[in-house]
Amino acid sequence: MAHFLARGYEVTAWDPAPDAEPRLRRLVEAAWPTLTRLGLAEGASTDRLTVTGTLEQAVADAEFVQESAPEKLDLKRDLLARLDAATPPGVVIASSTSGYPMTDMQTAAADPSRLVVGHPFNPPYLIPLVEVVGGERTDAAAVAWASRFYEVAGKSVITMDNEVPGFIANRLQEALWREALHMVASGEATVRDIDLSITEGPGLRWAVMGPMLTFALAGGEGGMAHMLDHFGPSLKSPWTRLAAPELDKELYDAVVAGCDEAADGRSIADLVAERDRGVVEVLRATGRLGPEDDSR
Amino acid sequence: MAHFLARGYEVTAWDPAPDAEPRLRRLVEAAWPTLTRLGLAEGASTDRLTVTGTLEQAVADAEFVQESAPEKLDLKRDLLARLDAATPPGVVIASSTSGYPMTDMQTAAADPSRLVVGHPFNPPYLIPLVEVVGGERTDAAAVAWASRFYEVAGKSVITMDNEVPGFIANRLQEALWREALHMVASGEATVRDIDLSITEGPGLRWAVMGPMLTFALAGGEGGMAHMLDHFGPSLKSPWTRLAAPELDKELYDAVVAGCDEAADGRSIADLVAERDRGVVEVLRATGRLGPEDDSR
Repeated sequence: MAHFLARGYEVTAWDPAPDAEPRLRRLVEAAWPTLTRLGLAEGASTDRLTVTGTLEQAVADAEFVQESAPEKLDLKRDLLARLDAATPPGVVIASSTSGYPMTDMQTAAADPSRLVVGHPFNPPYLIPLVEVVGGERTDAAAVAWASRFYEVAGKSVITMDNEVPGFIANRLQEALWREALHMVASGEATVRDIDLSITEGPGLRWAVMGPMLTFALAGGEGGMAHMLDHFGPSLKSPWTRLAAPELDKELYDAVVAGCDEAADGRSIADLVAERDRGVVEVLRATGRLGPEDDSR
Repeated sequence: MAHFLARGYEVTAWDPAPDAEPRLRRLVEAAWPTLTRLGLAEGASTDRLTVTGTLEQAVADAEFVQESAPEKLDLKRDLLARLDAATPPGVVIASSTSGYPMTDMQTAAADPSRLVVGHPFNPPYLIPLVEVVGGERTDAAAVAWASRFYEVAGKSVITMDNEVPGFIANRLQEALWREALHMVASGEATVRDIDLSITEGPGLRWAVMGPMLTFALAGGEGGMAHMLDHFGPSLKSPWTRLAAPELDKELYDAVVAGCDEAADGRSIADLVAERDRGVVEVLRATGRLGPEDDSR
């Protein structure tokens, strides 16, 4: 909502809570200084937010609809059916669900073909990622339109071909979260240690380079292939409660080829230099170094 | 090695490879421009690196020893015994192992009491985290000394009371890595999508705030307790291949109390403001925004 306003869009919102309008406006006002620092589009204004008294009023003239209701399947199913009934034909309706497959949510709608998942990340006015995927009864054109819509609106889009519960990022961060909960439950680490172990460690790399390419760099000039040769056996180690897949030739080759493709012509040395430049900037940006000093 | 040189320490290295000296010097030279940007300690110089022909020469006058051999248990066990035999009495010897418990590595040493794990993260000249933990036969004073040594040397230290295979950060990133390998193996996501889903999503938060406090903010003003009430049921969802622990009252209370402790008096609004400031800086630092523009 705040992101779209900052991009200069007209936003109409509906929320059934009795104090919805003041609460929604407070949320937007709270994010606005940050959005102003990020740079507002021409004409962007919090005045372009309208809050309506009914769902039907909110979507009557919509060109795109984003549903962000609480994470309850029955609620989402009913709401998407109501939105479909009230929204002009042909307009794409996206759900912010954190993990329900659209196939399970689109069952009650008269026109399920325009219903897609458009999963943002908290806070949505700052984190670029949106995962887009349709259900079994979604039209591929609606998925493509939604992906393009988010891109034009300044988001980073991953369009998925297949429905996977939790999509991609939530599966990954949920694995980390579950392991963290196990560690707290068994007294192996405190909440503070868990957070520190990420912010002072791998988290500094992950803003710059994803876990796959990051691990490829652990293989030195040999890249991911050397890394898998060296650390592959640790998949058998009891390092997590998550059982690892068998590192057979097919998976080995897929991971190595995937890294080559992601490297997109950059050598290991290029990637190391890029990561190092990025991590230095992240260290500086997060206050771990002093301000830039030209005398150095 | 490069980090300690940049802090102005005298470093003596030994590596059994035939071309060890030129290779080690190239590694240090490659990191030096980055270390120079980070700020060198007074008197820091690559000239303070000495490479010796034998292990015994390398540690004869050492005040601290860091073993960073390949990840093979037998090799580490033998090497730690040789290091213990050659190092002056009372000097602490740390192993860089990625996950072996010291209890399993210290079995062949005459004096196991001074052997500790000091686990750094790649690249060690940039990532501050070091995890320190002893084995069953390690003296608690050696663990405390090592933690203090790394702190003085400018690292961020987590001192663990108990041996956990993979320590903390590697357990967490290994859970994410295993889930990612499962997704590649089953064709659910490409290597590129996996990396993008982190660098454009949760990775932007994790350089600023760890996964526990980050999730606490998803609970709004209600913090972690509200988040667990709202998203706790998703622990039953098939969002990863890692089974979640039972979210019983004990775990619930431990996580909520741990977050309160980690927040250290900061309100949810304070934490949100801190995260947002940090993420904006990380976005800028990683080139996702233009350079700072004072007119905004």
